[in-house]
Amino acid sequence: MNEFELIESLTRELPGNATVVTGAGDDCAVLDLGLPDRWVLFKTDAVVEGVHYGPGTPPEKIGRKALARCLSDVAAMGGEPSSAVVTLALPRDYSPVLVAGVMAGLNRLAREHGMAVVGGETTTNPERMLISVALLGTVEKSRCVRRSGAQPGDALFVTGELGGSGAGKHLDFEPRLAEARWLTEHFAIHAMLDLSDGLAGDLRHLLRASNVGAELLSDAIPISRAAYEQAKHGVAASGANGAGVAPSAGAALAQSGRTPLTAALTDGEDFELLFTVASKDAVPLLDAWKGRFAPLRLSCVGRITAKPGLTIRDHAGFRPLELHGYTHFA
Amino acid sequence: MNEFELIESLTRELPGNATVVTGAGDDCAVLDLGLPDRWVLFKTDAVVEGVHYGPGTPPEKIGRKALARCLSDVAAMGGEPSSAVVTLALPRDYSPVLVAGVMAGLNRLAREHGMAVVGGETTTNPERMLISVALLGTVEKSRCVRRSGAQPGDALFVTGELGGSGAGKHLDFEPRLAEARWLTEHFAIHAMLDLSDGLAGDLRHLLRASNVGAELLSDAIPISRAAYEQAKHGVAASGANGAGVAPSAGAALAQSGRTPLTAALTDGEDFELLFTVASKDAVPLLDAWKGRFAPLRLSCVGRITAKPGLTIRDHAGFRPLELHGYTHFA
Repeated sequence: MNEFELIESLTRELPGNATVVTGAGDDCAVLDLGLPDRWVLFKTDAVVEGVHYGPGTPPEKIGRKALARCLSDVAAMGGEPSSAVVTLALPRDYSPVLVAGVMAGLNRLAREHGMAVVGGETTTNPERMLISVALLGTVEKSRCVRRSGAQPGDALFVTGELGGSGAGKHLDFEPRLAEARWLTEHFAIHAMLDLSDGLAGDLRHLLRASNVGAELLSDAIPISRAAYEQAKHGVAASGANGAGVAPSAGAALAQSGRTPLTAALTDGEDFELLFTVASKDAVPLLDAWKGRFAPLRLSCVGRITAKPGLTIRDHAGFRPLELHGYTHFA
Repeated sequence: MNEFELIESLTRELPGNATVVTGAGDDCAVLDLGLPDRWVLFKTDAVVEGVHYGPGTPPEKIGRKALARCLSDVAAMGGEPSSAVVTLALPRDYSPVLVAGVMAGLNRLAREHGMAVVGGETTTNPERMLISVALLGTVEKSRCVRRSGAQPGDALFVTGELGGSGAGKHLDFEPRLAEARWLTEHFAIHAMLDLSDGLAGDLRHLLRASNVGAELLSDAIPISRAAYEQAKHGVAASGANGAGVAPSAGAALAQSGRTPLTAALTDGEDFELLFTVASKDAVPLLDAWKGRFAPLRLSCVGRITAKPGLTIRDHAGFRPLELHGYTHFA
C-alpha cells in the first residue's frame, strides 16, 4: 500500500461537523468558525531527520523548512498565515544548541510573515529529530481557492522552475504567499495547489478533485538549472549538498539517466504554485505578472480538458503521461 | 538541560502578533481571530511508540490516547473542541491494519465529542510510530480559564484519583470536558490545568503562572487504587499491562519502595483537572458536584497562599514539598 492508497483508505470515514467547509484532501482544511467574512485554514506538516534533511543541514534551515512547507499550503488556498504550534520530537542525546537553531530559523520565517508561534511541545523520539508544525490561517470566503474548481478549457500555470529541488532549493524556497494573494486579488483563480510531490503527481490530484483531464505541453514546462545539472552530471542531489543522506523527496529520486524533463515532472519539493484560470485570462495574467513579480517565472504549461486523463505533447505528438510524482512508502 | 529548562529557553522569544491572547505556557494557546464572543484554542500533542505506549497496546487505544491528551488540555481551558488534524509518522514496514485501528480509535473519540477530523498527513519515521495531533477549539471569552488566575486564599481542587496511571488509565482516561464546562458555567474558576506530569510538578506551573504559593494537605490527596497496588506489589506498571516497555510517563517512575502518596504526587498522565476557586465557593461546589458527577471524586487538597513555594502538611506538620513531577530528558 503506497502513501496515497493509505491516505485514501484513512480519509474515507473521517468524522465531520458543521464547521467543516473542506476537510481532508486539499492543501489545508477550511473551517467556518463563525467569522463574518473569513474561513479558517488548518494544516499540519512534519520534517524528519534523514528523510527531509540530512545530518549536515544547518539547524536554522531545518526549522525554516518545517514552517515554510505549511506556509506553501496556506498560499495554495489563497490565504494568510496567522499562528503555529510546533512539536519537537527529540532523541535523548539532543543538542540544545541545534534545537535553538531550529527554532531560530522557524521563528525568523514566522516574523517575516507576521505570524505568531504560540507554543507546542517537546517529546522523545529516540533515534532522530522530527519537527511537526500545525498552522492556522484565514482567507476571505470569496478568495479561497480549492483544488476542485478547474474547468475544461482553463489555462494551466506554474510559478518558478521545477525539478532538482534536493540540490538546495528544498531548504531555501520562498512560500508563494504574496504571489497567491496577488493572484486571487486580481484574477478568478479556479483551482490551485502547491507542488510538493512533483507536477506529474500533484496535477493528478487537481484533476481528480475537479473531475477533469489535462494536456501538458512538454516544451512549456519550466525546468530548473538544478535539474539540468543533475541530468548532466548524473549525481544525486544528496551528493551535491554533502548531506550524506537523501535530503529530500526529490533527491531520493535523482539518478543518472533521467532527463531534465523527467526531473521537472517527478521531483518533489518544488513548492511552486500550480493553478488554473479561464483561457481568456491567460494573456492578461502573464502580462500583469511580469510587471509585478519578474524575474520569477510564470509559465502556461497546458490546458484543462473535459476528457479525464493526463496527456503530454512533445515532438512526437500527444501521448498519455505515465510518470507519477514522488510516493512515500512505494 | 531537562524538558522544562529547554522549553523555557525556547519560549522566551517566540514571535507574537495581534491575535495572541495567551501564547506558549498554558494548556492551550488562546487566539482572538475576530469572533464576537469567543476565543480560539490551539493545541498540539504527540504520542510515541515505546515512550507513551508499548508494542502490545491495542491500536484503537493508541489513537484514542493521542486525541484524548489534547482534549484534556481543551477541558483545562474551559473550552469545547472543534476539529483536529493528525500526523502519522510511520516506520517503513508499518501495518496498514494497525494504522487503520489507530485512526478508528481516534475517530470514535472525536465523534463522541462532536469533533471533526479534517486531515493531516503521513510521513516516514523509520524506527517507530509517532502520532501528533493538533486541535482547535473555542471558548466563550467570559469562561476561558488560565493558569494565572489563582488568588491567595483560594481552595485547591482535583478531580478523580491520582497516581498509577501507567497500569491502564493512561490509555482509557476520560478527558474532563463535561466537568470543566459545568464548572465554568456554575462557578468562578480562578485557575485550572490538567495533570499530565503529576500533581507535585503541575501545581508548580500553576503557582508560578499565578505568582502565589500553596499548602497541600497530605491526607486529602485522592490516591488511586492502582497507586496502592503498585506500592504493595512493588511492580512497575509496564509489567502490569504486559507492554514490555514503559507504557507511560507514570509507569517509567513506578518503582518498588515508593509510597502511594509519592505516586499520587509524581506519576504522570493522570489527566485530571486541578483548579482553584474562592474559599467561599468551596463547600457549595462540593455539594453541587456530588449531585452532578458522583461517583467521580472531587477533592479539596489544599489552599493557595500569598507566600511563594509549595508545602505539604502531614502528621509531622508543614514541610516544603521537595518532590517534582515527571520530567522528560531528566
